[in-house]
Amino acid sequence: MSERATAASPVTPLQQRSREADRPTSQLALFGPDQPLRLDCGVDLSPFQIAYQTYGQLNPERSNAILVCHALTGDQHVANVHPLTGKPGWWETLVGPGKPIDTARYFVICSNVVGSCMGSTGPSSANPATGKVWGLDFPVITIPDMVRAQAMLVDRLGIGTLLAVVGGSMGGMQVLQWASAYPDRVFSALPIACATRHSAHNIAFHEVGRQAVMADPDWRQGRYFEHDVRPQRGLGVARMAAHITYLSDAALHRKFGRRLQDRQNPTFSFDADFEVESYLRHQGSSFVERFDANSYLYLTRAMDYFDLAADHGGVLATAFRGTRTRFCVVSFTSDWLFPTPDSRSIVHALNAGGARVSFAEIETDKGHDAFLLDVPEFFDIARAFLDSAAAARGLGRTGTAA
Amino acid sequence: MSERATAASPVTPLQQRSREADRPTSQLALFGPDQPLRLDCGVDLSPFQIAYQTYGQLNPERSNAILVCHALTGDQHVANVHPLTGKPGWWETLVGPGKPIDTARYFVICSNVVGSCMGSTGPSSANPATGKVWGLDFPVITIPDMVRAQAMLVDRLGIGTLLAVVGGSMGGMQVLQWASAYPDRVFSALPIACATRHSAHNIAFHEVGRQAVMADPDWRQGRYFEHDVRPQRGLGVARMAAHITYLSDAALHRKFGRRLQDRQNPTFSFDADFEVESYLRHQGSSFVERFDANSYLYLTRAMDYFDLAADHGGVLATAFRGTRTRFCVVSFTSDWLFPTPDSRSIVHALNAGGARVSFAEIETDKGHDAFLLDVPEFFDIARAFLDSAAAARGLGRTGTAA
Repeated sequence: MSERATAASPVTPLQQRSREADRPTSQLALFGPDQPLRLDCGVDLSPFQIAYQTYGQLNPERSNAILVCHALTGDQHVANVHPLTGKPGWWETLVGPGKPIDTARYFVICSNVVGSCMGSTGPSSANPATGKVWGLDFPVITIPDMVRAQAMLVDRLGIGTLLAVVGGSMGGMQVLQWASAYPDRVFSALPIACATRHSAHNIAFHEVGRQAVMADPDWRQGRYFEHDVRPQRGLGVARMAAHITYLSDAALHRKFGRRLQDRQNPTFSFDADFEVESYLRHQGSSFVERFDANSYLYLTRAMDYFDLAADHGGVLATAFRGTRTRFCVVSFTSDWLFPTPDSRSIVHALNAGGARVSFAEIETDKGHDAFLLDVPEFFDIARAFLDSAAAARGLGRTGTAA
Repeated sequence: MSERATAASPVTPLQQRSREADRPTSQLALFGPDQPLRLDCGVDLSPFQIAYQTYGQLNPERSNAILVCHALTGDQHVANVHPLTGKPGWWETLVGPGKPIDTARYFVICSNVVGSCMGSTGPSSANPATGKVWGLDFPVITIPDMVRAQAMLVDRLGIGTLLAVVGGSMGGMQVLQWASAYPDRVFSALPIACATRHSAHNIAFHEVGRQAVMADPDWRQGRYFEHDVRPQRGLGVARMAAHITYLSDAALHRKFGRRLQDRQNPTFSFDADFEVESYLRHQGSSFVERFDANSYLYLTRAMDYFDLAADHGGVLATAFRGTRTRFCVVSFTSDWLFPTPDSRSIVHALNAGGARVSFAEIETDKGHDAFLLDVPEFFDIARAFLDSAAAARGLGRTGTAA
């Protein structure tokens, strides 16, 4: 697995990824020693940087900005070609000209979360104190830490109140954290397929993924950068296990059933006989090309730690008390990672806090991943909710004040 | 991970396990060159051995024998102390004097399945052709192969028709295969928490486990025995992933919730902060002490391949057409590995085949593992069903003909 570059050799995918961690193909906001990021673990992270993408134009009133928060293995490349994979942006279904998050009308921002590996400071960034890659010396971060960094970015962009904060899964957790920590800066909030805290079940799946990474001898106690190796096999297994949780039983059955791969009869071997096996193997191997193993540990940990009620004396409604933010909470019927009861408990807390909230449970067999897929009913709801928020904030059809 | 024994050193757990694979603490049935096991893959396995335990007494009429079929990681030690772990038998809740499977009344047999590692021939057994451990040279086996071997054992014990064949999960698959392949030898059948075929979802989870094992460099392409190492970390991760699927979300929540391990506050580290994490790590590390990694590959593969309808022209009812066996099919409400619809489809096929069948869906939040746990409603149903079968076969209360 060792990849060494000589002066003459072309740039390897691994080198490209390492470069992306420090010098990303994105806009960069640098925060110097005068602006440390206060982390929940007690550390002041400084200096640090946030990599972000924007789409559309900020209007003169600075009232049409929508912040998109990405999920665990997502990044800031919402609606442009990904610099490593060459694939379309991860939410081009939802974000773009004429799309529900209409970039002809709204100014859309998405930043790579702190702790990730696509240009915002994280465990694969260089530690300025040592000049070496942070690795496990990077402090453990939380969802509130990610949101605090995003708020500093939004300040830097000169935006007071966001028209909307939108995200699914870990992105949805950030939406909830935004609404709770900065109620006056969030005009509307669209948390999708998420929860105010991670369940024992979900912590368990994350722990399996972390153990798979840490069981790989190439992980080297997190110091793989120093040894010029990567725990590719362990991270691949982690991704495979996680990927199953993103799909529903029905979706897997519909996509693959028990169909055999390129043959009529079983091979009586451990080759990928069934299509679902080769699909999963591909998910694992393509993921390790674009993602850092230590970031996977840090971000799963951040999700595990998230518990909005615990941060508010054990009463979830307190997290949203008196809020004027408009909420739309969305769940999907076949999502077993963040099932509808999780979303209902958000709605109940919002109701108890006196918030203005609508709730949509969308019928689909696509599982947790539905928020990333082509689900017209979800698109209609997102569009209508944002239209209504824009109208309430006095925005015309073109994104300028009406 | 290398463990070497010198003349003076005590027997290691690993050596104990290796010994158990060839010279088990069980009764042994040896099948010589004249009695090969015809495998579905086309190979004749010969010679081979079956390790088994029995409990109770066979009556003079030979009509009170119950065959218990074990699950993926189970073995023949149903109701006695396990020779490796020192723990009670895995089904002592159900099997014993006065228990639903009453050993004061019935003669209970359980054999280690072919391909496993507790004394029946499998990949950790010595290959008589080479004198070395089989490893991946062992032929791929199927559920029908396991059942064929059991039928040879039952022959050897001089039993024609079994009063009942009983088992859960992979054991339930064997029950269904028995009833289909040997209808006249199965007076009654109790398949629990199982299906007539493995779903794409379940194949996917198995594939993650296999990839975790095979990603461990100590697996050595299955030849770890020759290198005196074991893929302990990979097998541990496989077990952790599988273990989650055996429990329900509700059971994990009830048992652990988000409780922190031995402390009030998160450590902001990758230690096992949450109780559910240390529980899972323990599940992984204790499993590798007692189970062989290659057997895990073979037995998960056997489950993946199982498809009773496919073996009968695609029509499940054909598998049971004209059967006189009495069936009781049991499922558990919170089992998401083999959910109730899987059991209902067994019942529909049995009905279509004209079989006598009762069906019980048992309300519990204990998940798939419920069949191994203390679930009184399940015990009552098992007892009543076996009582009724015994009465129909003319057995008195003491197990002799009435």
